[in-house]
Amino acid sequence: MKPSYYYLTLFIVLITSSACDHEPTKTSKDPLPSWNEGPVKTSIIQFVKSSTQLTNKNFIEIEDRIATFDNDGNLWSEQPYYFQLKFAIDRIINLADQHPEWEKKYPYRAVLENDMDKLISFGEHGLLELVMATHTGMSTQEFNHSVQEWLRSNTHPRFKVPYNELVYQPMLELITYLQANQYKTFIVSGGGVDFMRVWTEEAYNIPPDRVIGSSLKAEFVIENGEVLIKKLPAINFIDDKEGKPIGIHQYIGKKPVFASGNSDGDLQMLQYAASGNKPSFMLYLHHTDSIREWAYDRDSHIGRLDKGLDMAHKEGWAVIDMAKDWKVIYPFQLKK
Amino acid sequence: MKPSYYYLTLFIVLITSSACDHEPTKTSKDPLPSWNEGPVKTSIIQFVKSSTQLTNKNFIEIEDRIATFDNDGNLWSEQPYYFQLKFAIDRIINLADQHPEWEKKYPYRAVLENDMDKLISFGEHGLLELVMATHTGMSTQEFNHSVQEWLRSNTHPRFKVPYNELVYQPMLELITYLQANQYKTFIVSGGGVDFMRVWTEEAYNIPPDRVIGSSLKAEFVIENGEVLIKKLPAINFIDDKEGKPIGIHQYIGKKPVFASGNSDGDLQMLQYAASGNKPSFMLYLHHTDSIREWAYDRDSHIGRLDKGLDMAHKEGWAVIDMAKDWKVIYPFQLKK
Repeated sequence: MKPSYYYLTLFIVLITSSACDHEPTKTSKDPLPSWNEGPVKTSIIQFVKSSTQLTNKNFIEIEDRIATFDNDGNLWSEQPYYFQLKFAIDRIINLADQHPEWEKKYPYRAVLENDMDKLISFGEHGLLELVMATHTGMSTQEFNHSVQEWLRSNTHPRFKVPYNELVYQPMLELITYLQANQYKTFIVSGGGVDFMRVWTEEAYNIPPDRVIGSSLKAEFVIENGEVLIKKLPAINFIDDKEGKPIGIHQYIGKKPVFASGNSDGDLQMLQYAASGNKPSFMLYLHHTDSIREWAYDRDSHIGRLDKGLDMAHKEGWAVIDMAKDWKVIYPFQLKK
Repeated sequence: MKPSYYYLTLFIVLITSSACDHEPTKTSKDPLPSWNEGPVKTSIIQFVKSSTQLTNKNFIEIEDRIATFDNDGNLWSEQPYYFQLKFAIDRIINLADQHPEWEKKYPYRAVLENDMDKLISFGEHGLLELVMATHTGMSTQEFNHSVQEWLRSNTHPRFKVPYNELVYQPMLELITYLQANQYKTFIVSGGGVDFMRVWTEEAYNIPPDRVIGSSLKAEFVIENGEVLIKKLPAINFIDDKEGKPIGIHQYIGKKPVFASGNSDGDLQMLQYAASGNKPSFMLYLHHTDSIREWAYDRDSHIGRLDKGLDMAHKEGWAVIDMAKDWKVIYPFQLKK
């Protein structure tokens, strides 16, 4: 055999090996480098390892490896208020020229006068009116475009980066780790599904068909030969609280074995995952970091974690202490 | 270099190559062996090849390779009437002992007297009542069990095989071919999503999260510590006609580039697929085989193909002539 054959063969080994990118990683490299060592990190790795070892009593078949993640406050930040609400507010301001009546009409007036206390006093009903005014009466393409435009041209007031950069680095690693172990990863969020799908594939490597959220009704129309889906001002589905397990049933059709959330709105999803006849892992993110992110739980207006925290302690679910368990919060803070 | 190294290296090449089972097949083996040679088979293969060649002007990115298939009359038979209706009828008969009032009450009485003409005279409303009576008031687990039981214990009156064996062999090959070329394959059916998901993964290699269908409302309940999703007697979503593109938008969030159906109920799905800015392939199955299957189109009560046939001819969509294009209909007819 000539040496040149050896190198050719070696070359083929290398390219065919690297083509196998669907294979789970077999190295001992830390799959969660942005997580500090501790009981939460250990228990996650322990669960993933045992669920993927064929000979382990906690082995889970590949088709049953369903992992669901809440989004707001769980995969990205949600302070000082939900980013989708900020999108609606910014859009109200942009569209105000075309709606002179808004100057005198609440809740629009509160937005235009930048009076958040007043806005919040209108409760869910007022916020819903803003969502309808800014999310409907247009095609899905136009709506997608408006979200893209907003992400491109607005930054978060505290961190001065686009909103979609405020995703949690440790959660990105967790998603990647689960995917590498042949878990199907889904987002199950109270946020609007059309709003999320514009940016979630790039941010989390989760494609639109694995994003479940709240939605408005839509209609199919052919206008001047153009085929469109138009967004209508009526609620189709609220993917929150009891809605989460129902959404999971309607969209996924299987019970998750891994569920991750951060608020009481996620409690039913975690209870649903915990109720299966397979091993399962329930994970709560507790916002304890007032310095690097925000600290809030039982009394918060956004992302309240009260009953869920009690239930987690009672049931022995994993609770991430953000201040203690995470080395870094956002990707842009990683050392280059 | 010692020869033994050569063999070791070659061995590694072979095992790493065979581990790459996600790679599309590169051999010249016929991917559609149950299809007769002809324009439909040729155009399918031409589309798949061009959409997966990076240098081709019709190349489609992997994340956009979305293929949607109707189910009834498209992936499995639907005669003499929808198999899900047969399930409902058989269940009414089974449950009649517990409902003595049905003996005198239409549409139940028509079922118990085996009077199909009478039953059909009650129209959609009557059929819906049967569905509600047989599909709701129980947990999703109990419902799944009833479908499994029915499949196990009933056979089709003409072919004497379980209903889930009446899937089309050529369509199984088409699904496999698309999957091997990194298409995501979805079912988008007017049939009940909970009914389908019980058996579609095994039948088509399409997991529950890629099955979209009509659905009833559901509720999340905790009864005596048991966490359940209960099926309610109210319509949630009808995945037919205009509902198909809406369902695709709500569940998948991307426009398909490959859409396959057999009736006017699929027309809007095909129009939606045809309206994208990417190459696309629209496929109609025309039931022309009165000998091996059933022949029906413009006047049929089930699976009527009228407007869709005209549109297909006008737009140049591919139309499968079942009698001419398919070598075999069902898997159990394949030569062993």
